[in-house]
Amino acid sequence: MNIAIAELEEKGREAKAASKKLAFLSTEVKNKALLDVAEAVIEKQGEVLAANKIDYEEAKASGMNEAMLDRLMLSPGRLEAISQDVKTVAALPDPVGEVIEMRTLPNGLQIGKRRVPLGVVGAIYESRPNVTIDISSLCLKSGNAIILRGGKEAINSNTALARIAQEACYQAGVPQGAIQFIDSTERALVSHMLQMKGVIDLVIPRGGPGLIKLISENAAMPVITGGVGVCHTYVDKSADLDRAVAIAYNAKVQRPTVCNALDCLLVHSKVAQGLSPSVARELAKAGVEMHCDERAISILKPVPELRLVPAVDEDWGKEYLSLKAAIKVVNSLDDALEHIEKYGSGHSEAIITEDYSAAMRFLNEVDAACVYANASTRFTDGSQFGLGAEIGISTQKFHARGPMALRELTSYKWIIFGSGQVRP
Amino acid sequence: MNIAIAELEEKGREAKAASKKLAFLSTEVKNKALLDVAEAVIEKQGEVLAANKIDYEEAKASGMNEAMLDRLMLSPGRLEAISQDVKTVAALPDPVGEVIEMRTLPNGLQIGKRRVPLGVVGAIYESRPNVTIDISSLCLKSGNAIILRGGKEAINSNTALARIAQEACYQAGVPQGAIQFIDSTERALVSHMLQMKGVIDLVIPRGGPGLIKLISENAAMPVITGGVGVCHTYVDKSADLDRAVAIAYNAKVQRPTVCNALDCLLVHSKVAQGLSPSVARELAKAGVEMHCDERAISILKPVPELRLVPAVDEDWGKEYLSLKAAIKVVNSLDDALEHIEKYGSGHSEAIITEDYSAAMRFLNEVDAACVYANASTRFTDGSQFGLGAEIGISTQKFHARGPMALRELTSYKWIIFGSGQVRP
Repeated sequence: MNIAIAELEEKGREAKAASKKLAFLSTEVKNKALLDVAEAVIEKQGEVLAANKIDYEEAKASGMNEAMLDRLMLSPGRLEAISQDVKTVAALPDPVGEVIEMRTLPNGLQIGKRRVPLGVVGAIYESRPNVTIDISSLCLKSGNAIILRGGKEAINSNTALARIAQEACYQAGVPQGAIQFIDSTERALVSHMLQMKGVIDLVIPRGGPGLIKLISENAAMPVITGGVGVCHTYVDKSADLDRAVAIAYNAKVQRPTVCNALDCLLVHSKVAQGLSPSVARELAKAGVEMHCDERAISILKPVPELRLVPAVDEDWGKEYLSLKAAIKVVNSLDDALEHIEKYGSGHSEAIITEDYSAAMRFLNEVDAACVYANASTRFTDGSQFGLGAEIGISTQKFHARGPMALRELTSYKWIIFGSGQVRP
Repeated sequence: MNIAIAELEEKGREAKAASKKLAFLSTEVKNKALLDVAEAVIEKQGEVLAANKIDYEEAKASGMNEAMLDRLMLSPGRLEAISQDVKTVAALPDPVGEVIEMRTLPNGLQIGKRRVPLGVVGAIYESRPNVTIDISSLCLKSGNAIILRGGKEAINSNTALARIAQEACYQAGVPQGAIQFIDSTERALVSHMLQMKGVIDLVIPRGGPGLIKLISENAAMPVITGGVGVCHTYVDKSADLDRAVAIAYNAKVQRPTVCNALDCLLVHSKVAQGLSPSVARELAKAGVEMHCDERAISILKPVPELRLVPAVDEDWGKEYLSLKAAIKVVNSLDDALEHIEKYGSGHSEAIITEDYSAAMRFLNEVDAACVYANASTRFTDGSQFGLGAEIGISTQKFHARGPMALRELTSYKWIIFGSGQVRP
């Protein structure tokens, strides 16, 4: 076994040992630690920015594209935002210890489910260094130890941020070993990590579809997959058209680089003539390139100053993460449902309609983490849903679906208060 | 690809297709189907018993032991019990469609989580043919399609039972394909099944530790592991001794062959002299063989007519599933907690105490699916917990822990009723 792997195993043991103490750490100490981390991120920003500069310059020299460079870059403003996010987590209710569904059985047993941490979370992520602090703070608050493995592009930034978090936490009374950071960028470590069942209780990948696929296919322990959102908004024949324009515009344009942004607009043929030009004009103002099926093209062609592209097969089911959208005219709600079932990724889907039965059918039948009637898919977010900060959006059905917040980082145990009961 | 594997793939496709319709099947039709299955199991018992006779005689001829033979055997009485269990499932509330945590956000969005089925469940089980009907009825009620793979010892019994369930269900209006039964006993099919990710959403193994280990290590999809219970009852120095005797006796003797039965009794040294002989005398009456550590032996030696065996290392952490128990004298609650952490399987653990702080510490600190103060671990059971029938006991932390009943066979989706909201 090489040294890096031996070190990883040791970090796993330390995290496991720490997780047992973390499970009983008081909310007071956890919150104090979080506030100290928030402060330290600002106080020690010189250190972080210097480290980030090294990463940035190396990445630039190696030809990283602008979007990726932007994700990599830290600034005083971004560190302020990171610090603020940690404070937000500190202010959230502690999920650990909450008892749900407590009741008294006919035989007098008092029985309920008490939330407990999962144990040790492994995070494997790419590029954005804020994830180091983000995930650490959510795991700490939910009583989980964490093993962080960031991308090699951000190794210096991540190392600096992890060290700051560790120092602040341990000084505040968090058990030593609760935050583990893998400072080797050796690729074999990821494969090894994914086999550390019994040590790592849950793996959370954060990154592109390639990373998520690799991890979900190879991890021996549970993985929360998600983050890939091919999101449709279907404008029904009965839609309020102004509302439809506003929602489609918001879903596509408000923040096009994220998973809950609109990818494909489906328009009922009965309103396609009336609606599509208005939507298209609005989208065009924001610079959206529209990949249209034949019918949409023929309706939109006469409209000046649109960026129209004839759609090809790959446009259906594509997550653009940019100012592009597919537009398709459909003949019915059934066609829309069929298209979404075929091409959706089970993330967020919306219908715009004034027809009660159409809305109910859409909400019932679409199989996705979040299904909307008459609202923008951009709301799919832990904070927007009122759950507080989120660690990601799950598109799987097991354990948790949709925004994963603090509660979703916990399990439970049944606690039973008896007074001598035996089973008859 | 061989024919059996091609057939399995086809069954997977049929189950997946059926699962999409099953998700919307009315409770009325599901309950009607369940009641029809309950009736058919009795009406067609001749068929089932004849098939079971073949299995039984083949198993006997091949040298199967008595306990296993007993598990394999069906009788009119056992079929009556199976039929009754199906009726119980019919009478339970339908978990599908239940909406939880529905609320209105400040922006007017009405948002909640609606329970939906998981999709397709794969069941891999050994020996007991009742599992065929058990799991089918729980999956049907929770809207999941099922692929059944029973052990080869029970192939004829399982085939007959599955056919009865299929016929009754499809006639009652359950979508064709909802219940799939693998009638080939080829071993390679299990490995293939475990790779059918994207088709099978959850695998439930039912059988011995070997089967469970094999499946949890090889399945590409989520698995609910559990069923292995190394259960401790710790008698604290402050225990009510009569209560302790009654609870220890019940936990060990009431049904010794199951996972929630007592395996190890830990006795505080301060009460070991007073308590151990009374417990041991009771246990001895039921024929329990006691595997004792040195201190327990020296206390119990003078008591007549006990079956004492000096404990060896393998006795700690052993699931006996029979009229055997380990007994150990410990010096403190801390020693008991340490022993349980080291040797427990995370199933069910109990403390007998009149000391408030000891009870609270035990409930807080023991990391198991079910933790009891002053009650028998035998209560760990879906039906005893008031959840209705159960599909198994999960000892993992992910998705569900403890008794897995109908709700635990579901996921949820977020449904959002808007009125034109866009994200600011």
